[in-house]
Amino acid sequence: MEIENINVSSYPGSRKIYVDGVLFPIRVGMREISQYPTVKITDGHRTEIPNPPVTVYDTSGPYTDPDIQTDINRGLPRIREQWVVDRDDTVVLDNLSSEYGRKRMAMTELDAIRFPFLHNPRKAAEGRRITQMHYARKGIITAEMEYAAIRENLDNEKRGIKSYITPEFVRSEIAAGRAVITANVNHPEAEPMIIGKAFSVKLNTNIGNSALSSGIEEEVAKAVWSCYWGGDTLMDLSTGDNIHETREWIIRNCPVPVGTVPIYQALEKVNGVVRNLSWEIYRDTLIEQCEQGVDYFTIHAGVLRKHAELVKERLTGCVSRGGSIMTQWCVEHNEENFLYTHFDEICEILNKYDVTVSLGDGMRPGCTHDANDRAQFLELDTLGELTLRAWQHDVQVLVEGPGHVPMNKIEENMHRQANVCHDAPFYTLGPLTTDIAPAYDHITSAIGAANIALLGTAMICYVTPKEHLSLPDLNDVREGVITYKIAAHAADLAKGFPGANVRDDALSKARYDFRWKDQFNLSLDPEKARRYYLDARRNAPDADDRFCTMCGPDFCAMRISQKIAGSCES
Amino acid sequence: MEIENINVSSYPGSRKIYVDGVLFPIRVGMREISQYPTVKITDGHRTEIPNPPVTVYDTSGPYTDPDIQTDINRGLPRIREQWVVDRDDTVVLDNLSSEYGRKRMAMTELDAIRFPFLHNPRKAAEGRRITQMHYARKGIITAEMEYAAIRENLDNEKRGIKSYITPEFVRSEIAAGRAVITANVNHPEAEPMIIGKAFSVKLNTNIGNSALSSGIEEEVAKAVWSCYWGGDTLMDLSTGDNIHETREWIIRNCPVPVGTVPIYQALEKVNGVVRNLSWEIYRDTLIEQCEQGVDYFTIHAGVLRKHAELVKERLTGCVSRGGSIMTQWCVEHNEENFLYTHFDEICEILNKYDVTVSLGDGMRPGCTHDANDRAQFLELDTLGELTLRAWQHDVQVLVEGPGHVPMNKIEENMHRQANVCHDAPFYTLGPLTTDIAPAYDHITSAIGAANIALLGTAMICYVTPKEHLSLPDLNDVREGVITYKIAAHAADLAKGFPGANVRDDALSKARYDFRWKDQFNLSLDPEKARRYYLDARRNAPDADDRFCTMCGPDFCAMRISQKIAGSCES
Repeated sequence: MEIENINVSSYPGSRKIYVDGVLFPIRVGMREISQYPTVKITDGHRTEIPNPPVTVYDTSGPYTDPDIQTDINRGLPRIREQWVVDRDDTVVLDNLSSEYGRKRMAMTELDAIRFPFLHNPRKAAEGRRITQMHYARKGIITAEMEYAAIRENLDNEKRGIKSYITPEFVRSEIAAGRAVITANVNHPEAEPMIIGKAFSVKLNTNIGNSALSSGIEEEVAKAVWSCYWGGDTLMDLSTGDNIHETREWIIRNCPVPVGTVPIYQALEKVNGVVRNLSWEIYRDTLIEQCEQGVDYFTIHAGVLRKHAELVKERLTGCVSRGGSIMTQWCVEHNEENFLYTHFDEICEILNKYDVTVSLGDGMRPGCTHDANDRAQFLELDTLGELTLRAWQHDVQVLVEGPGHVPMNKIEENMHRQANVCHDAPFYTLGPLTTDIAPAYDHITSAIGAANIALLGTAMICYVTPKEHLSLPDLNDVREGVITYKIAAHAADLAKGFPGANVRDDALSKARYDFRWKDQFNLSLDPEKARRYYLDARRNAPDADDRFCTMCGPDFCAMRISQKIAGSCES
Repeated sequence: MEIENINVSSYPGSRKIYVDGVLFPIRVGMREISQYPTVKITDGHRTEIPNPPVTVYDTSGPYTDPDIQTDINRGLPRIREQWVVDRDDTVVLDNLSSEYGRKRMAMTELDAIRFPFLHNPRKAAEGRRITQMHYARKGIITAEMEYAAIRENLDNEKRGIKSYITPEFVRSEIAAGRAVITANVNHPEAEPMIIGKAFSVKLNTNIGNSALSSGIEEEVAKAVWSCYWGGDTLMDLSTGDNIHETREWIIRNCPVPVGTVPIYQALEKVNGVVRNLSWEIYRDTLIEQCEQGVDYFTIHAGVLRKHAELVKERLTGCVSRGGSIMTQWCVEHNEENFLYTHFDEICEILNKYDVTVSLGDGMRPGCTHDANDRAQFLELDTLGELTLRAWQHDVQVLVEGPGHVPMNKIEENMHRQANVCHDAPFYTLGPLTTDIAPAYDHITSAIGAANIALLGTAMICYVTPKEHLSLPDLNDVREGVITYKIAAHAADLAKGFPGANVRDDALSKARYDFRWKDQFNLSLDPEKARRYYLDARRNAPDADDRFCTMCGPDFCAMRISQKIAGSCES
């Protein structure tokens, strides 16, 4: 299969920059936005006062580096490969360990859709654990840790902004379980990033086809698009055909960590018959995906047999796909959830590749009515227990959270999770703060997401305008990502995250100076901001006019204000 | 001028209902959304369990009543006229009291754009005060108060939901200054509604042309559109040509209270030369607008001469149009703000028509950097002083608030306002919680609006996606209104406002039942929700399918969940 090369035009007024590591030979990609000078006119004299460029967090990877020729058919540069090799604790396998993986590989009819440049999988050497948590607990700072530390700090040092984030701090947070760097050794294309309360709030995007929609090309395009607009991590939730091959294309072309829910694929393997799921099939699926390079797995191990009854008390039952599948399995077999009973074995697989476990909240509320109920909080208790078990295996842990929660019940979610799950990073879906706005649930949920992030949630999973209605297309991905960038950034700003205000202040100063192009370039979506402005001024040149169509020249408060301040004559 | 009649198709699955008053012969309009039954299939038998209709707050007035033939050229029915007449404390004037009003009336060249059915203005009889606060303080319950009380309760009684809201409670809140019913006797077309912390959170929309855009027809269309989607009040912020005539068209066709910022028109009268503004011109403008029927005026009387200096310390100076105009006037004349020095006279004009004063926050922060600074809070102190002065004249008061405020500084805004302004209702613009997302400021601000509303703000002023860039068009008005309905409702839900959860629970139950039509009909924007759903199922009939394109049939959690609960066989 040939996928047309995806061109992601770089942001206007921006250039890719790299900051070098001190401990390791690493180069951390960032985006630098240039600014025009402020023009002052005093007594007829024009003075130009320069404005420094603004450095922003960049999730777009090589796609926005004009010096790197990306090619969807070859995949991204494998920047972490040498770091992993240098640690000398892994081996490259001769063949795939998963039976299913080998079976797919042998099917020549899949050659047409198979990613053409496959690599042999890498795995921990016999008896070794290779997780970032393992290293962190041993006091070892990895290249990934330094990379994440540099990335969080942007140009703070240059600006004289004090930041507590050092490679050693990153290490200590990972060692304590309060943060994760989710970085499978088989996804060396991903740029390391850190998820934890002490760091900038991250956002996850979901893509993936269902039985009713979308093909490989579209999903790869969505993945790249998501990274371009600012998605920090990406979940491939495909449930339709060719999940295995689709995932390979996505991972090889994705500069951010990729997550999945392996039970989806396991269910495909048993043709959608929940009863026929088994630990063996699931185990093989885990290994298959570990060796492809999935960075984190959502695992619904907290759904217990004894809690199935509680679903009946709810208004909308169980709305987690994985949760409902496992509940059904428990009920049909009258057995305990095999994800729970085999959890230690799962962890021993994960720590061979450094895959993070994201403990799924199968009982998350699907409506505000069901928020904070027994089903939800009893499962959370189990997730707390599983957190400790995963840590015993040096497996990094994220804990997933709701869902639909009215604003007054958000705080309890965060505090309980922190207490019960020993400060493992919380990763929530929204939450949606009301149920009455399908087609606008990016907004109902951004309100909840900003609030829970301010309270300490480390990563928020985006919701697009299509939530509850259909799968997102490219436009929805963009809308969802920008909306969640807003929620995450509003929380960073309110938390006083070091340097978070730099971009706000620069944009506001540009606004006050009528530096329209800078205002657009500094914004989260320069194209849309510029388009809205120009649409209203169709007949006017793209000039730095000293007013806008909102108020017109006579009623421009900023113009009047500058006049009062004596910095503007007109 | 002929304006094409505006047809506002009524909401799907809905009908207009009226609830009769007990104390007064009033009929309170509401919208009732019907529901399909829940279908259960047990052992092959199909049972239908009916779902009761849901009554929702309705701001669309006669436009959604098929029994009323609305005509933009004649204006809406004058429902409050008889109530006012019955109070027997007003007189109908033979002519306009405002000099400017009479001058415009005499200009035959304006006939072409003049609203064709003008009424003589009404005013308090000599020596009378006719404000709702005046009546409330005297212990009198008015028809407006009963109307507002019924409106807040919807079908709570029918559902057995206890509510504290009675006509007497409404009266007591108005008497205490904690709530307002903004209802000029010259705008009898408006349906009474109440703004106060103890009531459902309201949302204001802004429309109006600037020198660079839009005509009368477009503004009337925006006004009707705003009411259709759920705007509770409407500000006409026009600053371009023919402000007087545009306003007449809007008021005569607007079923919700209309507000203005009179200084805008006063400035037009002096051709945009701030220096030439005077108390006399402003006074005549107030009277002109009182007699047209404006329900509330934003008056920037808190902008003081001595605070002008503080603007210079800011990153973005003064961003309130009215505030910057008055600051400039103070500086140029080196005199105190005439709105402040003449505030008692202003109140004595307002209480003759029952116009509410909305104390403008001329020093609201225009960026997160400037939030909660000295300029803002010193002005707030003055607004507190003015609140008491207005109340001495029985004038109802709203207090306006910011603006741009990071989430961590929102609470201080609400608490200070409540303390300093003696619990007068707070009415905020957003606030925007970050500055970096022009083109998405409906979202940056909905986060702030939901939060400040939860803390006690009574009315939130919408922000559209075009904020900072240009004036909103019809689509932006819709997007802004729905976004703010979400923020307001999220706050109501979290406050535990009586009956607020009814619509959420009904929609969620419909979702769980796969009653797709009900899910759309119960939503804030049925058309968009339905469109998103159908777009993804282009080839499928508009049926109540038991899954959606998000997950497809095999991965539908709700479907699996119902199977577990035994209520669904498939």
